[in-house]
Amino acid sequence: MATDLGATRGDGIFESLLAVDGVPRKVGAHLDRLAKSARIMDLDIPSAESWQRAIATAVAEHPAVEELVIKLLVTRGVEGAQRPTAWVQAEPAGPTGRRQRTEGVDILLLDRGYDSNLAERAPWLLLGAKTLSYAVNMAALRYAKANGADDVIFTSTDGLVLEGPTSTVLMATERDGVKTLVTPLLENGILPGTSQGALFKAAADAGWQLGYGPLEPKHLFDADAVWLVSSIRLLAPVKSIDGKAIPVSLTMTEELTKLLAEGSRD
Amino acid sequence: MATDLGATRGDGIFESLLAVDGVPRKVGAHLDRLAKSARIMDLDIPSAESWQRAIATAVAEHPAVEELVIKLLVTRGVEGAQRPTAWVQAEPAGPTGRRQRTEGVDILLLDRGYDSNLAERAPWLLLGAKTLSYAVNMAALRYAKANGADDVIFTSTDGLVLEGPTSTVLMATERDGVKTLVTPLLENGILPGTSQGALFKAAADAGWQLGYGPLEPKHLFDADAVWLVSSIRLLAPVKSIDGKAIPVSLTMTEELTKLLAEGSRD
Repeated sequence: MATDLGATRGDGIFESLLAVDGVPRKVGAHLDRLAKSARIMDLDIPSAESWQRAIATAVAEHPAVEELVIKLLVTRGVEGAQRPTAWVQAEPAGPTGRRQRTEGVDILLLDRGYDSNLAERAPWLLLGAKTLSYAVNMAALRYAKANGADDVIFTSTDGLVLEGPTSTVLMATERDGVKTLVTPLLENGILPGTSQGALFKAAADAGWQLGYGPLEPKHLFDADAVWLVSSIRLLAPVKSIDGKAIPVSLTMTEELTKLLAEGSRD
Repeated sequence: MATDLGATRGDGIFESLLAVDGVPRKVGAHLDRLAKSARIMDLDIPSAESWQRAIATAVAEHPAVEELVIKLLVTRGVEGAQRPTAWVQAEPAGPTGRRQRTEGVDILLLDRGYDSNLAERAPWLLLGAKTLSYAVNMAALRYAKANGADDVIFTSTDGLVLEGPTSTVLMATERDGVKTLVTPLLENGILPGTSQGALFKAAADAGWQLGYGPLEPKHLFDADAVWLVSSIRLLAPVKSIDGKAIPVSLTMTEELTKLLAEGSRD
């Protein structure tokens, strides 16, 4: 309804997941994060079993779709009803994500306006919850496009790398045959990435070293490769940061994309 | 539609205005601010004339309602449609606002996480636009209620008083017969309050001195009266801040409430 507090206040939470050839990926991780967002937002949500049935229905309704985007949404409900609204929607993935996987992205570093210690001391700011209040994330993407880039990496006021508006930041180094995959510290107020989690697990099993920030922009410039990773677009290699080209590794992108697919089967 | 980007991304803008005995208040100021929000958000919105007609329809559909809340909303539209969705909704005002006008509110100071110079240097953060992404504002109100208060005054990381989640902060002093009304600096990244604007104009005409921050919490504790002001609730006297009682002035509340009503006729 138009009077739903999701529509009038952005007061709700969501998850976007990908089903490939009829198989939804990382369902457990998405439902875990949805439950965490619900706790932070003080929202009652349907059981995991209900979501699983709805996801299965969405997949069944879209046979022969190679890549299906499935969104899970919960709002605080229609004004006055005192009861959340929950639904699942599904549609074939658009071409942009797939193009960015192969062609890569140019990104801008943009100040998120928060310092990296805020999450702990200000729970009302909802850092760590994936809410429907994404206007700033969308505005940052518009700003990037208006300035010749494709996407954004947010930084904190104290100079740390945070996350993309709809993605997690990853970087890799290879030194003396040792490959290391690094992502920013979760404690800095970023969303825990389900793709990053799945990839880290699979990469560790495949012999990669893992690292967690704090990361500064200079670390990205010094890396052997940087990616934005998200559930729908998967791994998008970063080609440039603030107009300055950085190294892209086809080999590592290919290897990590394979590991991500393996790690996403649950 | 459930796939409207207003519902799935909080990607839109709004205004809430009050009609008293069939007369909508401050229509011009609300339409001006809606247009400003639209510019910041890069949204095309209907003409002022269309809104005025819709507001008149909403009022006509609710005869004999003493206080009618009218909301104007615009979203980026249904996903893929490339066209905004705009609507007006109206309903009788609930009892809470009216109660708070007479009984006052206990407030908590909560860190908004932003410094007071951010608006200028980070336009993608949409400070100064009244967006549908209000999850943080709603979470702050829930936090206040869970901690025994009614409402919130946000502060900046550099210690300045900003605004309420759905209101503007006002304070008054009376020294040697001179009455002064003060509100935080707009440049600190707060929303320009239509009620504050209307009241300031009427108060100046009535002989009040006007002042604009920067305000710190200590100024609120030293004031002769503090209010939260908004279009629906009007002037709500602040009774306590972080559990510490502050002076309430019935005389000034009465005088300013009258001036606000006069200033709101346009």
